[in-house]
Amino acid sequence: MGNTFGHLFRITTFGESHGGGVGVIIDGCPPRLEISAEEIQVELDRRRPGQSKITTPRKEADACEILSGVFEGKTLGTPISILVRNKDTRSQDYDEMEQKYRPSHADATYDAKYGIRNWQGGGRSSARETIGRVAAGAIAKKILYQVANVEIIGYVKRIKDLEGIVDPNTVTLEEVESNIVRCPDTESAERMIELIEKIGRQGDSVGGVVECVARNVPKGLGAPVFDKLEADIAKAVMSLPASKGFEIGSGFGGTLLTGIEHNDEFYIDDAGEIRTLTNRSGGIQGGISNGENIILRVAFKPTATIRKEQKTVTREGEETLLAAKGRHDPCVLPRAVPMVEAMVALVLCDHLLRHYGQCKVL
Amino acid sequence: MGNTFGHLFRITTFGESHGGGVGVIIDGCPPRLEISAEEIQVELDRRRPGQSKITTPRKEADACEILSGVFEGKTLGTPISILVRNKDTRSQDYDEMEQKYRPSHADATYDAKYGIRNWQGGGRSSARETIGRVAAGAIAKKILYQVANVEIIGYVKRIKDLEGIVDPNTVTLEEVESNIVRCPDTESAERMIELIEKIGRQGDSVGGVVECVARNVPKGLGAPVFDKLEADIAKAVMSLPASKGFEIGSGFGGTLLTGIEHNDEFYIDDAGEIRTLTNRSGGIQGGISNGENIILRVAFKPTATIRKEQKTVTREGEETLLAAKGRHDPCVLPRAVPMVEAMVALVLCDHLLRHYGQCKVL
Amino acid sequence: MGNTFGHLFRITTFGESHGGGVGVIIDGCPPRLEISAEEIQVELDRRRPGQSKITTPRKEADACEILSGVFEGKTLGTPISILVRNKDTRSQDYDEMEQKYRPSHADATYDAKYGIRNWQGGGRSSARETIGRVAAGAIAKKILYQVANVEIIGYVKRIKDLEGIVDPNTVTLEEVESNIVRCPDTESAERMIELIEKIGRQGDSVGGVVECVARNVPKGLGAPVFDKLEADIAKAVMSLPASKGFEIGSGFGGTLLTGIEHNDEFYIDDAGEIRTLTNRSGGIQGGISNGENIILRVAFKPTATIRKEQKTVTREGEETLLAAKGRHDPCVLPRAVPMVEAMVALVLCDHLLRHYGQCKVL
Amino acid sequence: MGNTFGHLFRITTFGESHGGGVGVIIDGCPPRLEISAEEIQVELDRRRPGQSKITTPRKEADACEILSGVFEGKTLGTPISILVRNKDTRSQDYDEMEQKYRPSHADATYDAKYGIRNWQGGGRSSARETIGRVAAGAIAKKILYQVANVEIIGYVKRIKDLEGIVDPNTVTLEEVESNIVRCPDTESAERMIELIEKIGRQGDSVGGVVECVARNVPKGLGAPVFDKLEADIAKAVMSLPASKGFEIGSGFGGTLLTGIEHNDEFYIDDAGEIRTLTNRSGGIQGGISNGENIILRVAFKPTATIRKEQKTVTREGEETLLAAKGRHDPCVLPRAVPMVEAMVALVLCDHLLRHYGQCKVL
Repeated sequence: MGNTFGHLFRITTFGESHGGGVGVIIDGCPPRLEISAEEIQVELDRRRPGQSKITTPRKEADACEILSGVFEGKTLGTPISILVRNKDTRSQDYDEMEQKYRPSHADATYDAKYGIRNWQGGGRSSARETIGRVAAGAIAKKILYQVANVEIIGYVKRIKDLEGIVDPNTVTLEEVESNIVRCPDTESAERMIELIEKIGRQGDSVGGVVECVARNVPKGLGAPVFDKLEADIAKAVMSLPASKGFEIGSGFGGTLLTGIEHNDEFYIDDAGEIRTLTNRSGGIQGGISNGENIILRVAFKPTATIRKEQKTVTREGEETLLAAKGRHDPCVLPRAVPMVEAMVALVLCDHLLRHYGQCKVL
Repeated sequence: MGNTFGHLFRITTFGESHGGGVGVIIDGCPPRLEISAEEIQVELDRRRPGQSKITTPRKEADACEILSGVFEGKTLGTPISILVRNKDTRSQDYDEMEQKYRPSHADATYDAKYGIRNWQGGGRSSARETIGRVAAGAIAKKILYQVANVEIIGYVKRIKDLEGIVDPNTVTLEEVESNIVRCPDTESAERMIELIEKIGRQGDSVGGVVECVARNVPKGLGAPVFDKLEADIAKAVMSLPASKGFEIGSGFGGTLLTGIEHNDEFYIDDAGEIRTLTNRSGGIQGGISNGENIILRVAFKPTATIRKEQKTVTREGEETLLAAKGRHDPCVLPRAVPMVEAMVALVLCDHLLRHYGQCKVL
Repeated sequence: MGNTFGHLFRITTFGESHGGGVGVIIDGCPPRLEISAEEIQVELDRRRPGQSKITTPRKEADACEILSGVFEGKTLGTPISILVRNKDTRSQDYDEMEQKYRPSHADATYDAKYGIRNWQGGGRSSARETIGRVAAGAIAKKILYQVANVEIIGYVKRIKDLEGIVDPNTVTLEEVESNIVRCPDTESAERMIELIEKIGRQGDSVGGVVECVARNVPKGLGAPVFDKLEADIAKAVMSLPASKGFEIGSGFGGTLLTGIEHNDEFYIDDAGEIRTLTNRSGGIQGGISNGENIILRVAFKPTATIRKEQKTVTREGEETLLAAKGRHDPCVLPRAVPMVEAMVALVLCDHLLRHYGQCKVL
Repeated sequence: MGNTFGHLFRITTFGESHGGGVGVIIDGCPPRLEISAEEIQVELDRRRPGQSKITTPRKEADACEILSGVFEGKTLGTPISILVRNKDTRSQDYDEMEQKYRPSHADATYDAKYGIRNWQGGGRSSARETIGRVAAGAIAKKILYQVANVEIIGYVKRIKDLEGIVDPNTVTLEEVESNIVRCPDTESAERMIELIEKIGRQGDSVGGVVECVARNVPKGLGAPVFDKLEADIAKAVMSLPASKGFEIGSGFGGTLLTGIEHNDEFYIDDAGEIRTLTNRSGGIQGGISNGENIILRVAFKPTATIRKEQKTVTREGEETLLAAKGRHDPCVLPRAVPMVEAMVALVLCDHLLRHYGQCKVL
């Protein structure tokens, strides 16, 4: 358990960072959707290590292969299995970690739970696991776009204390992709890149906040009570490695307002649609989408694996020191952007299918 | 779908605020646990409206009845069904709401999704739905305590901009319950109560932050990837009415630190256990409990239903004004404390059973 | 776990035979369906004990109350909770069973699993649990009928070695209900009733076979691989108390034919629809409905609880004898008919919603 | 949905008969189990086409590769992904089937449901899909054996009207594997083989019955109500291609007995254990294992794809004739034996983990 996400659009990921490969099975994809490995690869390339000077220099092509579920370029309605072979692995970088637990990493807790772990490169807890999520997210995005022109755009909102100014209602994918840190505020982006480079040279790391908007989401997605849209999104993004916090709409800041300041008053727009004057709800009321833009933020901690020396312990229970070798991201945020988008897409696509049915949605 | 939570310890809630009643079925409770309606009632009374001058004056006893699953004072391992009848309902307070949608409430989205809604008192979106959660949480808490002395304590950390100073490692239930706002920092508590009373008299409302700690959680609970402990807790608390944000451990604030500042270094304690010197991870690493205190925070927005007049629209799509009648909480935080505790308990209990098995845990 | 059935149309039952009551929560019911307690009661009365001279003489009205999910006569899309209070319970009839395990009953295995059991009247293993299923089935039937005129009709096909001659393609509910044994072949029905009465007077019991047909099922319901329609129906009916076997279409008898004898050849009917000349498939091919009548059979063993003396053992592990007191059905078949219909309806309704979506189906 | 089976020991299969490959992800496998591709291959070889003169002459090595979840020969507790590449595919044999629906096959219903299908070799409805099940079953069997010496042995009980005499309480795997039809009654086996060869030469096919026994199953597995052990097994085996019926213990035949004839009386054995004198219950009472041998039977219809000419229709709705080309099994029974064993193992292993917990069972 624990490696499956979603109900009607349901993904199951597999794979350790070192081993045969990583991937995903997508069960419940509507039939007759045109999809190709190339389209999926576009998203994987945004997640790929080695894509820029501020990510890990590991060179992994992460080339995906569709093993099933697609026939003559179209989905069959059967499980889509996607595999990415593991390639550029330098296990020797991890030799020390067979014995020493990395602080704030999953090494120690995996051992506590399972009594065994693949210590090469983080094993199952490696961010490499998210390849399957991003591949599945690419398909979810396409379904959402075809059914309702839904656009899901994530971007770096803040690195450490450097915050970008971005309008979620108008931001474009092109703006996000215009720089390597994926902050559409180009001025802030430059300073963020400088900071990440500087911190990386020090063998240290930084975190920050990813913001994500979903536009054109149909009204009525989500379910009352436990499967509220914001609850499912919260679980989705809080299951990403290194995430520490989640906000929808006004979030923590909204708690500083009074009710009359915070409520989103209703009006009727020119098309006769019920709309809200403001959007502190973040596009969701009572767990159900209201047609306004869904806006959320995710906090990512500074990367745990750093080259600076830290106190730690061994499997055998002896205190020691560790300065991690290996090629690690000084900041996960730029690569986390497609991950957040993917998770939001997976949740929305699942609720879309619950609402409209697997075979009738397209 | 959407009204069930958990896998091995699985609850399903039912009920609208006006109608026959509300309640819960708990499936998967370990057998032979001693439990009584009185014990459950203790938690329900903490959630109950009318419990103090800063909550809604509605007088609902919320007396619970155990319909099944308990025999001669002990659980059978079969579904425990708990029912609370609806009583003090003044439907006439809601007459206006049959037509008018309350801003930032679920009225409009329920209609968009279902084409029908019980407009009396919020129906299914009423906080009254949480009675079932709190009742189930009372049982989950007891199991956790019996198996591993787990203590789960929530409290009000902040009301609007008034923040209390509380040490999660030492705070007691008695301190929380020592005042009606449930902030163990008694000095701050007084100012919070004053603020809520003042805002309430104005027909307005306020929000804030609940913090919650789980102590003595065994190592090894939680699952990698999607069912990470923090992901399941995030979903659990973000499914509570009015919640807008979630943080675990260092949360959003932790993104301002560098890796070397943020990482929790390991050491060996006197008992030979692997421990961390700090706890920015909030008791969870890689989605799995590490034995340190689990600490989290939930942002609750100001109550949506207020007496102040606001712009809104009718079901028929006409713009109008609404000043809500009825007896509403000017601040949900004091009553949200047992709800947050309950949700955290449900998640931990579910993972406890996954780890140890339903019938072998006690 | 284990008390929930279905995915999109999902029921959870609760309750022991002696205790507060039994019932069901139905989650995922489409909104705006007209439904009343009276309609549900019609089905419950077909399941009710004491309905005729060949069922147990226990007099239980089994009056149901809808606690939630229905508003002004229509479903809300929220969980429908239905409660039937326990009434005519003579616990003293069961005193002996606190210690003595009934042969071929669940007494011993419940104790082995849980270390505790409600020994009054069978507790959770009582056929009384099926009240919740039949109530939910009444709603599922109505949805299926409203969406596609689906008719689900069960009947007694055989009692011990007395087999009725019934055409599943034309049988009507009226014919089924025309006699107390629910066999539409009235001549066989008389002999069946005589047999049951005779066997009952001897303190013994008999079993038999229920056949069930679902007509007008839309093409395309069911899912490949694990959730094949026949697999889900098999689980559904094999979860009924006393069931020992299941067949779809040609069933066990079909194994005596060769491929050319068994295959259902295709033709195009007057309406241009693809049809099959025969129906040995029983309306399902590859796990998916093909538009022909779904026909299945369920074997029910003779009632385990009998008045004849049998060898048994006590909880403490001593050998002894037991001649059951209490008022037991000499044959469960007549009352099993609505149970089988209900389970088939639940499966079909669940797959209907998967295919068309919860909110779009009606 | 529909491609996942199980709760705690949960498998998801993927793959069409023609395409990249087929396989399975096993989620929830206990950690630290020794397992190798070679052990899994043993079971796959029992399922493999071309293994004898009475199976399809297609030569597929079906060599499996473990992609994840195993490290240095031991399971990690993380998802085990197993892939079998597709090899010996002669798509041209299926050209005619792009247009013509095979009678009693899934061709027409897949098109009705999805509006698209991989018509090469049956696509997802091919028995090739069961490779993933058998691979997962090999692991489930090993867990069951290590935890409790559970043995699961299937065999051919009947081919058409030729029935073997086999004692499920003593039959061995060696006896089953001693002949190519997998009927341990060697005399009957010879006649079965003759029949299958004869029928095969005629371009026709036959069906029959597989019986399966699980010995040493611990008491207390299974859950009341919907997840009764026999209900879960029924779903499991009725999800196998070509299955038409299921029986547990006395099955349909048991309905000819009276209660006193059918009930399994209890006694105390020499070890002080509660046992039953007979085993008409088939090892399960009230949905829970009672420690006796679990015995069940599955009816398989004659193979649908035959070389004899049959009436059928095209996708475009025109009547035509079809005599299938390709290399098909004249009888699926010999290869169905490991499939039935696998499905029974999957159910038992899932309930074992529910009872004892994933990480504590080994």
